[in-house]
Amino acid sequence: GVNVSVVFGQLSEEAARQMRSRGKSLKASADGKLPFCAMGVSSVIHPKNPHVPTMHFNYRYFEIEEADGTKQWWFGGGTDLTPTYLNEEDAVHFHKTLKEACDKHDPKLYPKYKKWCDDYFFIKHRGERRGIGGIFFDDLDSPSKEEVFQFVQSCAKAIVPCYIPIVKKHCHDAFTPEEKQWQQLRRGRYVEFNLVYDRGTKFGLLTPGSRIESILMSLPLTARWEYMHTPPESSREAEILEVLRNPKDWVH
Amino acid sequence: GVNVSVVFGQLSEEAARQMRSRGKSLKASADGKLPFCAMGVSSVIHPKNPHVPTMHFNYRYFEIEEADGTKQWWFGGGTDLTPTYLNEEDAVHFHKTLKEACDKHDPKLYPKYKKWCDDYFFIKHRGERRGIGGIFFDDLDSPSKEEVFQFVQSCAKAIVPCYIPIVKKHCHDAFTPEEKQWQQLRRGRYVEFNLVYDRGTKFGLLTPGSRIESILMSLPLTARWEYMHTPPESSREAEILEVLRNPKDWVH
Repeated sequence: GVNVSVVFGQLSEEAARQMRSRGKSLKASADGKLPFCAMGVSSVIHPKNPHVPTMHFNYRYFEIEEADGTKQWWFGGGTDLTPTYLNEEDAVHFHKTLKEACDKHDPKLYPKYKKWCDDYFFIKHRGERRGIGGIFFDDLDSPSKEEVFQFVQSCAKAIVPCYIPIVKKHCHDAFTPEEKQWQQLRRGRYVEFNLVYDRGTKFGLLTPGSRIESILMSLPLTARWEYMHTPPESSREAEILEVLRNPKDWVH
Repeated sequence: GVNVSVVFGQLSEEAARQMRSRGKSLKASADGKLPFCAMGVSSVIHPKNPHVPTMHFNYRYFEIEEADGTKQWWFGGGTDLTPTYLNEEDAVHFHKTLKEACDKHDPKLYPKYKKWCDDYFFIKHRGERRGIGGIFFDDLDSPSKEEVFQFVQSCAKAIVPCYIPIVKKHCHDAFTPEEKQWQQLRRGRYVEFNLVYDRGTKFGLLTPGSRIESILMSLPLTARWEYMHTPPESSREAEILEVLRNPKDWVH
Protein backbone atom coordinates (compact mmCIF):
# COMPACT_ATOMS: atom_id res chain seq x y z
CA GLY A 1 0.00 0.00 0.00
CA VAL A 2 0.93 3.63 -0.40
CA ASN A 3 -0.18 6.33 2.03
CA VAL A 4 -0.16 10.02 1.33
CA SER A 5 -1.45 11.90 4.31
CA VAL A 6 -1.94 15.43 5.48
CA VAL A 7 -3.30 15.70 8.99
CA PHE A 8 -3.80 18.61 11.35
CA GLY A 9 -5.48 19.22 14.66
CA GLN A 10 -4.56 19.47 18.32
CA LEU A 11 -1.78 17.31 19.69
CA SER A 12 -3.17 14.85 22.25
CA GLU A 13 -1.69 14.95 25.78
CA GLU A 14 -0.06 11.57 25.25
CA ALA A 15 1.41 12.51 21.85
CA ALA A 16 2.85 15.73 23.32
CA ARG A 17 4.30 13.73 26.22
CA GLN A 18 6.02 11.33 23.80
CA MET A 19 7.49 14.23 21.79
CA ARG A 20 8.73 15.97 24.91
CA SER A 21 10.33 12.70 26.02
CA ARG A 22 12.62 12.90 22.98
CA GLY A 23 13.75 16.40 23.87
CA LYS A 24 11.20 18.76 22.37
CA SER A 25 10.21 21.74 24.49
CA LEU A 26 6.60 22.36 23.54
CA LYS A 27 4.95 25.29 25.24
CA ALA A 28 1.21 24.72 25.17
CA SER A 29 -1.25 27.55 25.64
CA ALA A 30 -3.18 27.90 28.91
CA ASP A 31 -5.88 25.49 27.74
CA GLY A 32 -3.17 22.90 26.93
CA LYS A 33 -3.72 23.12 23.18
CA LEU A 34 -0.93 22.54 20.68
CA PRO A 35 -2.05 22.90 17.06
CA PHE A 36 -0.06 20.71 14.69
CA CYS A 37 0.11 19.92 11.02
CA ALA A 38 1.81 16.83 9.61
CA MET A 39 2.18 15.44 6.13
CA GLY A 40 3.96 12.49 4.70
CA VAL A 41 4.20 9.77 2.14
CA SER A 42 4.87 6.18 3.08
CA SER A 43 4.69 2.70 1.72
CA VAL A 44 5.23 -0.85 2.91
CA ILE A 45 5.56 -3.71 0.46
CA HIS A 46 5.27 -7.26 1.80
CA PRO A 47 5.96 -9.52 -1.20
CA LYS A 48 4.53 -13.04 -1.38
CA ASN A 49 7.84 -14.59 -2.42
CA PRO A 50 10.15 -15.07 0.61
CA HIS A 51 13.17 -14.28 -1.56
CA VAL A 52 11.89 -10.75 -2.20
CA PRO A 53 12.46 -8.61 0.91
CA THR A 54 9.90 -6.32 2.53
CA MET A 55 10.62 -2.63 1.99
CA HIS A 56 9.31 0.32 3.90
CA PHE A 57 9.81 4.02 3.48
CA ASN A 58 8.29 7.09 5.02
CA TYR A 59 9.15 10.76 4.53
CA ARG A 60 7.29 13.36 6.53
CA TYR A 61 7.12 16.98 7.58
CA PHE A 62 5.81 18.11 10.96
CA GLU A 63 4.85 21.55 12.25
CA ILE A 64 3.67 22.61 15.70
CA GLU A 65 2.50 26.03 16.79
CA GLU A 66 3.41 26.94 20.32
CA ALA A 67 1.44 29.18 22.67
CA ASP A 68 3.44 32.31 21.77
CA GLY A 69 2.87 31.74 18.04
CA THR A 70 6.38 30.44 17.24
CA LYS A 71 6.39 27.48 14.90
CA GLN A 72 8.52 24.40 15.36
CA TRP A 73 9.08 22.33 12.23
CA TRP A 74 11.08 19.26 11.33
CA PHE A 75 11.46 16.54 8.73
CA GLY A 76 11.75 12.85 9.45
CA GLY A 77 11.78 9.60 7.57
CA GLY A 78 13.78 6.73 6.24
CA THR A 79 13.95 3.69 3.99
CA ASP A 80 14.66 0.20 5.33
CA LEU A 81 14.76 -3.38 4.12
CA THR A 82 13.48 -6.54 5.85
CA PRO A 83 14.61 -9.72 4.09
CA THR A 84 13.45 -13.19 5.10
CA TYR A 85 16.81 -14.59 3.99
CA LEU A 86 20.10 -12.75 3.74
CA ASN A 87 21.47 -11.94 0.31
CA GLU A 88 24.71 -10.00 0.80
CA GLU A 89 24.76 -8.62 -2.73
CA ASP A 90 21.25 -7.17 -2.28
CA ALA A 91 22.12 -5.73 1.13
CA VAL A 92 25.17 -3.99 -0.30
CA HIS A 93 23.21 -2.63 -3.28
CA PHE A 94 20.45 -1.31 -1.03
CA HIS A 95 22.77 0.44 1.40
CA LYS A 96 25.13 1.71 -1.30
CA THR A 97 22.27 3.38 -3.17
CA LEU A 98 21.09 5.11 -0.01
CA LYS A 99 24.65 6.13 0.86
CA GLU A 100 25.11 7.77 -2.54
CA ALA A 101 21.91 9.78 -2.06
CA CYS A 102 23.14 10.98 1.34
CA ASP A 103 26.74 11.64 0.25
CA LYS A 104 25.62 14.25 -2.27
CA HIS A 105 24.64 16.40 0.70
CA ASP A 106 27.21 15.50 3.33
CA PRO A 107 29.37 12.37 3.75
CA LYS A 108 28.65 12.39 7.49
CA LEU A 109 24.93 11.75 6.92
CA TYR A 110 24.88 8.10 5.81
CA PRO A 111 26.90 6.67 8.75
CA LYS A 112 24.78 8.68 11.19
CA TYR A 113 21.39 7.75 9.70
CA LYS A 114 22.42 4.13 9.08
CA LYS A 115 23.14 3.77 12.80
CA TRP A 116 19.94 5.66 13.70
CA CYS A 117 18.03 3.14 11.55
CA ASP A 118 19.66 0.15 13.30
CA ASP A 119 18.86 1.71 16.68
CA TYR A 120 15.30 2.70 15.78
CA PHE A 121 14.08 -0.58 14.25
CA PHE A 122 15.10 -2.51 17.34
CA ILE A 123 12.68 -5.06 18.80
CA LYS A 124 13.94 -4.66 22.34
CA HIS A 125 12.18 -7.70 23.83
CA ARG A 126 13.70 -9.93 21.11
CA GLY A 127 17.16 -8.35 21.01
CA GLU A 128 16.75 -8.25 17.23
CA ARG A 129 16.35 -5.55 14.63
CA ARG A 130 13.29 -5.64 12.34
CA GLY A 131 15.49 -5.94 9.26
CA ILE A 132 18.91 -5.11 7.85
CA GLY A 133 18.29 -1.39 8.14
CA GLY A 134 18.84 1.43 5.71
CA ILE A 135 18.57 5.04 6.81
CA PHE A 136 16.36 6.74 9.41
CA PHE A 137 16.23 10.23 10.87
CA ASP A 138 13.84 12.47 12.77
CA ASP A 139 13.67 16.01 14.15
CA LEU A 140 15.78 17.36 11.25
CA ASP A 141 15.54 21.16 11.43
CA SER A 142 18.90 22.51 10.27
CA PRO A 143 20.71 24.09 8.50
CA SER A 144 17.60 25.46 6.76
CA LYS A 145 14.17 24.26 5.69
CA GLU A 146 15.17 24.41 2.01
CA GLU A 147 18.37 22.40 2.50
CA VAL A 148 16.68 19.72 4.61
CA PHE A 149 13.92 19.49 2.00
CA GLN A 150 16.54 19.01 -0.75
CA PHE A 151 18.09 16.19 1.27
CA VAL A 152 14.73 14.51 1.90
CA GLN A 153 13.99 14.69 -1.83
CA SER A 154 17.28 12.94 -2.60
CA CYS A 155 16.35 10.16 -0.15
CA ALA A 156 12.92 9.82 -1.74
CA LYS A 157 14.41 9.60 -5.25
CA ALA A 158 16.65 6.75 -4.08
CA ILE A 159 13.72 4.48 -3.14
CA VAL A 160 13.07 3.05 -6.60
CA PRO A 161 16.74 2.40 -7.52
CA CYS A 162 17.56 0.87 -4.13
CA TYR A 163 14.63 -1.58 -4.11
CA ILE A 164 13.19 -2.32 -7.56
CA PRO A 165 16.32 -4.07 -8.93
CA ILE A 166 16.13 -6.49 -5.96
CA VAL A 167 12.45 -7.22 -6.71
CA LYS A 168 13.19 -7.85 -10.39
CA LYS A 169 16.10 -10.13 -9.53
CA HIS A 170 14.12 -12.39 -7.19
CA CYS A 171 10.44 -12.18 -8.03
CA HIS A 172 10.54 -15.40 -10.04
CA ASP A 173 12.74 -17.35 -7.58
CA ALA A 174 11.24 -20.69 -6.60
CA PHE A 175 10.55 -21.23 -2.90
CA THR A 176 9.61 -24.11 -0.59
CA PRO A 177 6.80 -24.26 2.00
CA GLU A 178 9.52 -24.16 4.70
CA GLU A 179 10.86 -20.89 3.28
CA LYS A 180 7.35 -19.46 3.20
CA GLN A 181 6.85 -20.48 6.82
CA TRP A 182 10.06 -18.75 7.93
CA GLN A 183 8.83 -15.65 6.10
CA GLN A 184 5.60 -15.84 8.10
CA LEU A 185 7.47 -16.06 11.41
CA ARG A 186 9.56 -13.03 10.42
CA ARG A 187 6.33 -11.20 9.57
CA GLY A 188 5.20 -11.92 13.13
CA ARG A 189 8.24 -9.99 14.35
CA TYR A 190 7.35 -7.19 11.93
CA VAL A 191 3.92 -6.97 13.57
CA GLU A 192 5.55 -6.94 17.02
CA PHE A 193 7.79 -4.02 16.09
CA ASN A 194 5.04 -1.98 14.48
CA LEU A 195 2.44 -2.44 17.22
CA VAL A 196 4.78 -2.21 20.23
CA TYR A 197 7.49 0.27 19.21
CA ASP A 198 6.84 2.18 15.99
CA ARG A 199 6.56 5.91 16.63
CA GLY A 200 4.31 6.60 13.65
CA THR A 201 1.91 3.78 14.51
CA LYS A 202 1.72 4.84 18.16
CA PHE A 203 1.16 8.47 17.16
CA GLY A 204 -1.63 7.37 14.83
CA LEU A 205 -3.36 5.13 17.35
CA LEU A 206 -3.25 7.95 19.92
CA THR A 207 -4.67 10.55 17.53
CA PRO A 208 -8.47 10.67 17.91
CA GLY A 209 -10.25 10.34 14.61
CA SER A 210 -7.19 9.02 12.78
CA ARG A 211 -7.67 6.64 9.87
CA ILE A 212 -6.90 3.21 11.34
CA GLU A 213 -6.86 1.37 8.01
CA SER A 214 -4.07 3.67 6.77
CA ILE A 215 -2.05 3.35 9.97
CA LEU A 216 -2.24 -0.44 10.05
CA MET A 217 -1.61 -0.78 6.33
CA SER A 218 2.00 -1.45 7.38
CA LEU A 219 0.99 -4.85 8.79
CA PRO A 220 1.51 -7.90 6.56
CA LEU A 221 -1.40 -9.84 5.05
CA THR A 222 -0.51 -12.86 7.20
CA ALA A 223 1.85 -13.59 10.10
CA ARG A 224 2.76 -16.49 12.34
CA TRP A 225 3.99 -17.11 15.88
CA GLU A 226 5.51 -20.35 17.12
CA TYR A 227 6.44 -21.06 20.71
CA MET A 228 10.23 -21.35 21.19
CA HIS A 229 11.06 -21.47 17.50
CA THR A 230 14.84 -21.65 17.02
CA PRO A 231 16.44 -22.31 13.63
CA PRO A 232 19.22 -24.90 13.47
CA GLU A 233 22.82 -23.67 13.72
CA SER A 234 24.43 -22.51 10.46
CA SER A 235 21.09 -22.68 8.63
CA ARG A 236 20.07 -19.85 6.32
CA GLU A 237 17.49 -18.89 8.97
CA ALA A 238 20.24 -18.60 11.62
CA GLU A 239 22.32 -16.55 9.18
CA ILE A 240 19.76 -13.73 8.89
CA LEU A 241 19.08 -13.82 12.66
CA GLU A 242 22.79 -13.26 13.32
CA VAL A 243 22.71 -10.10 11.18
CA LEU A 244 19.51 -8.90 12.87
CA ARG A 245 21.18 -9.32 16.26
CA ASN A 246 24.49 -7.76 15.22
CA PRO A 247 24.04 -5.18 12.45
CA LYS A 248 26.80 -5.08 9.85
CA ASP A 249 28.39 -2.29 7.86
CA TRP A 250 27.37 -3.05 4.29
CA VAL A 251 29.25 -0.22 2.61
CA HIS A 252 32.78 0.97 3.29
CA GLY B 1 -0.29 -22.99 26.17
CA VAL B 2 -0.38 -22.79 29.93
CA ASN B 3 1.85 -20.47 31.94
CA VAL B 4 2.58 -20.78 35.62
CA SER B 5 4.89 -18.02 36.69
CA VAL B 6 6.47 -16.67 39.82
CA VAL B 7 8.57 -13.58 39.26
CA PHE B 8 10.26 -11.15 41.63
CA GLY B 9 12.70 -8.29 41.36
CA GLN B 10 12.67 -4.51 41.24
CA LEU B 11 9.82 -2.72 39.53
CA SER B 12 11.08 -0.82 36.48
CA GLU B 13 10.46 2.96 36.36
CA GLU B 14 7.99 2.50 33.53
CA ALA B 15 6.09 -0.33 35.28
CA ALA B 16 5.83 1.76 38.47
CA ARG B 17 4.58 4.71 36.42
CA GLN B 18 1.88 2.56 34.83
CA MET B 19 0.76 1.26 38.24
CA ARG B 20 0.66 4.76 39.71
CA SER B 21 -1.40 5.89 36.74
CA ARG B 22 -4.16 3.53 37.87
CA GLY B 23 -4.20 5.00 41.37
CA LYS B 24 -1.55 3.14 43.35
CA SER B 25 0.58 5.24 45.68
CA LEU B 26 3.93 3.49 45.65
CA LYS B 27 6.58 5.02 47.87
CA ALA B 28 9.97 4.01 46.49
CA SER B 29 13.09 4.15 48.64
CA ALA B 30 15.69 6.91 48.07
CA ASP B 31 17.40 4.87 45.33
CA GLY B 32 14.04 4.46 43.56
CA LYS B 33 13.80 0.74 44.20
CA LEU B 34 10.49 -1.07 44.62
CA PRO B 35 10.87 -4.79 45.27
CA PHE B 36 7.94 -6.81 43.94
CA CYS B 37 6.79 -10.38 43.76
CA ALA B 38 4.13 -11.62 41.34
CA MET B 39 2.70 -15.02 40.60
CA GLY B 40 -0.01 -16.26 38.37
CA VAL B 41 -1.44 -18.94 36.18
CA SER B 42 -2.76 -18.23 32.73
CA SER B 43 -3.73 -19.92 29.53
CA VAL B 44 -4.85 -18.98 26.06
CA ILE B 45 -6.38 -21.54 23.73
CA HIS B 46 -6.68 -20.67 20.03
CA PRO B 47 -8.53 -23.62 18.44
CA LYS B 48 -8.07 -24.47 14.77
CA ASN B 49 -11.80 -24.82 14.14
CA PRO B 50 -13.45 -21.39 13.71
CA HIS B 51 -16.58 -22.69 15.45
CA VAL B 52 -14.66 -23.26 18.68
CA PRO B 53 -14.01 -19.91 20.40
CA THR B 54 -10.69 -18.75 21.81
CA MET B 55 -10.59 -18.75 25.61
CA HIS B 56 -8.21 -16.93 27.89
CA PHE B 57 -7.88 -16.86 31.64
CA ASN B 58 -5.36 -15.44 34.05
CA TYR B 59 -5.38 -15.35 37.84
CA ARG B 60 -2.55 -13.60 39.63
CA TYR B 61 -1.28 -12.28 42.95
CA PHE B 62 0.94 -9.22 43.25
CA GLU B 63 2.98 -7.88 46.16
CA ILE B 64 5.09 -4.73 46.40
CA GLU B 65 7.26 -3.64 49.30
CA GLU B 66 7.39 0.08 49.83
CA ALA B 67 10.32 2.09 51.20
CA ASP B 68 8.97 2.02 54.78
CA GLY B 69 8.57 -1.78 54.72
CA THR B 70 4.78 -1.84 54.30
CA LYS B 71 3.53 -4.37 51.82
CA GLN B 72 0.85 -3.70 49.23
CA TRP B 73 -0.86 -6.79 47.83
CA TRP B 74 -3.68 -7.48 45.43
CA PHE B 75 -5.27 -10.15 43.28
CA GLY B 76 -6.28 -9.77 39.67
CA GLY B 77 -7.50 -11.88 36.84
CA GLY B 78 -10.38 -12.96 34.69
CA THR B 79 -11.76 -15.38 32.13
CA ASP B 80 -13.00 -14.27 28.72
CA LEU B 81 -14.22 -15.74 25.45
CA THR B 82 -13.41 -14.70 21.86
CA PRO B 83 -15.62 -16.43 19.31
CA THR B 84 -15.17 -16.08 15.55
CA TYR B 85 -18.93 -16.47 15.09
CA LEU B 86 -21.64 -15.72 17.62
CA ASN B 87 -23.47 -18.63 19.20
CA GLU B 88 -25.94 -17.20 21.70
CA GLU B 89 -26.41 -20.45 23.58
CA ASP B 90 -22.65 -20.71 24.15
CA ALA B 91 -22.38 -17.08 25.21
CA VAL B 92 -25.17 -17.57 27.77
CA HIS B 93 -23.62 -20.79 29.10
CA PHE B 94 -20.19 -19.15 29.45
CA HIS B 95 -21.45 -16.06 31.27
CA LYS B 96 -23.94 -17.99 33.40
CA THR B 97 -21.23 -20.33 34.69
CA LEU B 98 -19.00 -17.39 35.63
CA LYS B 99 -21.95 -15.58 37.23
CA GLU B 100 -22.71 -18.59 39.43
CA ALA B 101 -19.09 -18.72 40.61
CA CYS B 102 -19.23 -15.02 41.53
CA ASP B 103 -22.73 -15.14 43.09
CA LYS B 104 -21.54 -17.59 45.77
CA HIS B 105 -19.47 -14.75 47.17
CA ASP B 106 -21.57 -11.68 46.47
CA PRO B 107 -24.29 -11.06 43.85
CA LYS B 108 -22.79 -7.63 43.17
CA LEU B 109 -19.56 -9.13 41.82
CA TYR B 110 -20.64 -10.57 38.46
CA PRO B 111 -22.25 -7.38 37.05
CA LYS B 112 -19.25 -5.34 38.18
CA TYR B 113 -16.60 -7.68 36.78
CA LYS B 114 -18.58 -8.39 33.62
CA LYS B 115 -18.56 -4.66 32.86
CA TRP B 116 -14.89 -4.39 33.86
CA CYS B 117 -14.14 -7.15 31.33
CA ASP B 118 -16.04 -5.36 28.54
CA ASP B 119 -14.17 -2.15 29.38
CA TYR B 120 -10.76 -3.78 29.69
CA PHE B 121 -10.72 -5.86 26.50
CA PHE B 122 -11.51 -2.82 24.38
CA ILE B 123 -9.52 -2.25 21.19
CA LYS B 124 -9.85 1.51 21.30
CA HIS B 125 -8.61 2.25 17.77
CA ARG B 126 -11.18 -0.23 16.36
CA GLY B 127 -14.08 0.65 18.64
CA GLU B 128 -14.48 -3.09 19.21
CA ARG B 129 -14.00 -5.45 22.13
CA ARG B 130 -11.62 -8.40 21.71
CA GLY B 131 -14.42 -10.85 22.40
CA ILE B 132 -17.76 -11.32 24.12
CA GLY B 133 -16.20 -10.82 27.55
CA GLY B 134 -16.58 -12.77 30.75
CA ILE B 135 -15.19 -11.41 33.99
CA PHE B 136 -12.15 -9.29 34.77
CA PHE B 137 -10.86 -7.56 37.89
CA ASP B 138 -7.65 -6.10 39.25
CA ASP B 139 -6.31 -4.45 42.44
CA LEU B 140 -8.61 -6.61 44.61
CA ASP B 141 -7.42 -6.14 48.21
CA SER B 142 -10.51 -6.29 50.41
CA PRO B 143 -12.22 -7.41 52.58
CA SER B 144 -9.31 -9.72 53.51
CA LYS B 145 -6.59 -11.67 51.76
CA GLU B 146 -8.28 -14.98 52.68
CA GLU B 147 -11.71 -13.92 51.35
CA VAL B 148 -10.31 -12.55 48.09
CA PHE B 149 -8.29 -15.77 47.68
CA GLN B 150 -11.47 -17.84 48.17
CA PHE B 151 -13.21 -15.80 45.49
CA VAL B 152 -10.30 -16.15 43.05
CA GLN B 153 -10.36 -19.92 43.63
CA SER B 154 -14.06 -20.05 42.76
CA CYS B 155 -13.33 -18.19 39.52
CA ALA B 156 -10.51 -20.57 38.68
CA LYS B 157 -12.73 -23.61 39.31
CA ALA B 158 -15.29 -22.22 36.87
CA ILE B 159 -12.88 -22.24 33.91
CA VAL B 160 -13.35 -25.88 32.91
CA PRO B 161 -17.17 -25.95 33.21
CA CYS B 162 -17.59 -22.62 31.40
CA TYR B 163 -15.42 -23.55 28.41
CA ILE B 164 -14.99 -27.29 27.90
CA PRO B 165 -18.66 -28.03 27.09
CA ILE B 166 -18.42 -25.45 24.27
CA VAL B 167 -15.29 -27.14 22.89
CA LYS B 168 -16.95 -30.58 22.99
CA LYS B 169 -20.05 -29.25 21.30
CA HIS B 170 -18.25 -27.70 18.32
CA CYS B 171 -14.88 -29.38 17.86
CA HIS B 172 -16.19 -31.62 15.08
CA ASP B 173 -18.21 -28.89 13.31
CA ALA B 174 -17.40 -28.62 9.60
CA PHE B 175 -16.08 -25.27 8.39
CA THR B 176 -15.39 -23.56 5.06
CA PRO B 177 -12.21 -21.76 3.91
CA GLU B 178 -14.17 -18.47 4.18
CA GLU B 179 -14.97 -19.20 7.84
CA LYS B 180 -11.31 -20.00 8.49
CA GLN B 181 -10.31 -16.71 6.85
CA TRP B 182 -12.70 -14.69 9.03
CA GLN B 183 -11.18 -16.45 12.07
CA GLN B 184 -7.73 -15.33 10.87
CA LEU B 185 -8.86 -11.72 10.55
CA ARG B 186 -10.30 -11.86 14.08
CA ARG B 187 -6.98 -13.29 15.29
CA GLY B 188 -5.32 -10.20 13.81
CA ARG B 189 -7.48 -8.11 16.15
CA TYR B 190 -6.48 -10.38 19.03
CA VAL B 191 -2.82 -9.61 18.25
CA GLU B 192 -3.62 -5.89 18.10
CA PHE B 193 -5.23 -5.95 21.55
CA ASN B 194 -2.47 -7.97 23.16
CA LEU B 195 0.47 -5.99 21.77
CA VAL B 196 -1.06 -2.51 22.02
CA TYR B 197 -3.22 -2.60 25.16
CA ASP B 198 -2.85 -5.69 27.35
CA ARG B 199 -1.53 -4.76 30.79
CA GLY B 200 0.15 -8.12 31.44
CA THR B 201 1.91 -8.15 28.07
CA LYS B 202 3.11 -4.57 28.50
CA PHE B 203 4.33 -5.30 32.04
CA GLY B 204 6.20 -8.34 30.74
CA LEU B 205 7.82 -6.54 27.82
CA LEU B 206 8.96 -3.76 30.17
CA THR B 207 10.43 -6.16 32.74
CA PRO B 208 14.12 -6.70 31.99
CA GLY B 209 15.03 -10.37 31.79
CA SER B 210 11.41 -11.51 31.45
CA ARG B 211 10.68 -14.66 29.48
CA ILE B 212 9.43 -13.38 26.11
CA GLU B 213 8.23 -16.77 24.85
CA SER B 214 5.88 -17.06 27.86
CA ILE B 215 4.58 -13.52 27.47
CA LEU B 216 3.87 -13.85 23.76
CA MET B 217 2.39 -17.32 24.12
CA SER B 218 -0.97 -15.51 24.11
CA LEU B 219 -0.56 -14.72 20.39
CA PRO B 220 -2.25 -17.04 17.90
CA LEU B 221 -0.30 -19.39 15.62
CA THR B 222 -1.41 -17.39 12.58
CA ALA B 223 -3.21 -14.09 11.94
CA ARG B 224 -4.31 -11.99 9.00
CA TRP B 225 -4.85 -8.32 8.13
CA GLU B 226 -6.82 -7.06 5.14
CA TYR B 227 -7.11 -3.45 4.11
CA MET B 228 -10.66 -2.11 4.55
CA HIS B 229 -12.27 -5.46 5.18
CA THR B 230 -15.98 -5.03 5.90
CA PRO B 231 -18.36 -7.98 6.13
CA PRO B 232 -21.67 -7.70 4.23
CA GLU B 233 -24.72 -6.49 6.15
CA SER B 234 -26.66 -9.14 8.12
CA SER B 235 -23.93 -11.72 7.50
CA ARG B 236 -22.77 -13.92 10.38
CA GLU B 237 -19.53 -11.90 10.35
CA ALA B 238 -21.49 -8.65 10.80
CA GLU B 239 -23.49 -10.31 13.61
CA ILE B 240 -20.45 -10.93 15.82
CA LEU B 241 -19.03 -7.46 15.02
CA GLU B 242 -22.26 -5.90 16.27
CA VAL B 243 -21.86 -7.66 19.62
CA LEU B 244 -18.18 -6.68 19.85
CA ARG B 245 -19.15 -3.05 19.28
CA ASN B 246 -22.12 -3.11 21.65
CA PRO B 247 -21.65 -5.62 24.46
CA LYS B 248 -24.78 -7.48 25.53
CA ASP B 249 -26.04 -8.74 28.86
CA TRP B 250 -26.01 -12.49 28.44
CA VAL B 251 -27.48 -13.39 31.81
CA HIS B 252 -30.44 -11.79 33.56
